[in-house]
Amino acid sequence: MTTLGATLADVRDGQVIITAPILPSSAQQHGFGHAGLTFSIGDSAAGYSALTMMAEGQEVLTTEMKINLLAPAMGDYLRATGKVVKAGKRLVIVTAEVEAITGDQAITIAILQGTMVPVNLPS
Amino acid sequence: MTTLGATLADVRDGQVIITAPILPSSAQQHGFGHAGLTFSIGDSAAGYSALTMMAEGQEVLTTEMKINLLAPAMGDYLRATGKVVKAGKRLVIVTAEVEAITGDQAITIAILQGTMVPVNLPS
Amino acid sequence: MTTLGATLADVRDGQVIITAPILPSSAQQHGFGHAGLTFSIGDSAAGYSALTMMAEGQEVLTTEMKINLLAPAMGDYLRATGKVVKAGKRLVIVTAEVEAITGDQAITIAILQGTMVPVNLPS
Amino acid sequence: MTTLGATLADVRDGQVIITAPILPSSAQQHGFGHAGLTFSIGDSAAGYSALTMMAEGQEVLTTEMKINLLAPAMGDYLRATGKVVKAGKRLVIVTAEVEAITGDQAITIAILQGTMVPVNLPS
Repeated sequence: MTTLGATLADVRDGQVIITAPILPSSAQQHGFGHAGLTFSIGDSAAGYSALTMMAEGQEVLTTEMKINLLAPAMGDYLRATGKVVKAGKRLVIVTAEVEAITGDQAITIAILQGTMVPVNLPS
Repeated sequence: MTTLGATLADVRDGQVIITAPILPSSAQQHGFGHAGLTFSIGDSAAGYSALTMMAEGQEVLTTEMKINLLAPAMGDYLRATGKVVKAGKRLVIVTAEVEAITGDQAITIAILQGTMVPVNLPS
Repeated sequence: MTTLGATLADVRDGQVIITAPILPSSAQQHGFGHAGLTFSIGDSAAGYSALTMMAEGQEVLTTEMKINLLAPAMGDYLRATGKVVKAGKRLVIVTAEVEAITGDQAITIAILQGTMVPVNLPS
Repeated sequence: MTTLGATLADVRDGQVIITAPILPSSAQQHGFGHAGLTFSIGDSAAGYSALTMMAEGQEVLTTEMKINLLAPAMGDYLRATGKVVKAGKRLVIVTAEVEAITGDQAITIAILQGTMVPVNLPS
């Protein structure tokens, strides 16, 4: 999150919104550089949404995640909304949507679908 | 690539190897921070492998990518091997494997499978 | 669709609902047999939703699809809702949700996210 | 497997090969009908490969699977090779390759990457 310059914008049970600046390296329309940043912010939002469903002393790890990229990461900033689809004991299924915000316009630039696993922190 | 501190270690037709340092933010065993870095280096290796099959003046963009994370990104450095599975005119199907290298030991930490699309650069 | 015993229940621009019986082979709670049927109905709903955005004489082919399975395919019948997320000229990004219906209760048993490509039919 | 008319052709620790006839419904070059059959045979091969790593009294369930389709399912028959990439206690990461066989020629028509979860059978 620090590396991304990201901020938790909204936290509810099973849904978290993160915002992040569009780094210069991701602003390029041509070239495959931007997938990593968009993935990272989407994955983080999904992970934090799973974390809202965990017991104290538990963290979550991404075990698998799939991203479809729809549009270049261009605009004022990025907004990622992570959601829990199903919170099981062993697996938490999540989705995320990443939007590029320009003024009052939001364009979906990526959707993600994946799985988080709960991990007990060493006490 | 610059952000990741990554280096092109080997380039052949349809296969590219990238190495990258393990950044402090990714070395954490617990916490979901490391998926983004591992994704980025795997996606880059996959993208460069697709690029070896393109005509001059063409780039590639990731349209979709799936990652399964197998082990934490811990060790001396990361090595990602990207491979072209099928290079079509409209779609290039790729895979990548990311390994954590410690001394002379390599542990697979992630596998990726996805699609790149050729893009004509503005001349 | 015929093999699945499936029916088009609702067709709108960019959204299609399919219903299908739960075949005996898919009703098993244990065993990995049911993924294929659930995938097939979800993929079909996604494909038909993409088809609603095509020009005459065009079909669509699944180029990639990812499914997360959330619950066993048990109940009276299955209902799959396919939606177009983005309809581009070369790629159509789609999602689908598959529910198991028992009486007036619906349980989400799978979510899918993938890509269709338009194909020109031979005239 | 029975529905698919599939046969276990080879079983080793962590690798299983399945063969299956190409059903008429899947032989169509145009139309999105064939993804389900190709997915089913690939998913089955992956599941059986995971099963070779399980203790007695355990089964496996597909929790998520992603398929990239490379070519139409045309030829004499299909051959799917499932492989275990990592067998953990909670998650088994698998891949599969599906080939269409015509005479002595094999063409890769799909690759899959996914996760199986061990399930204890009721005793």
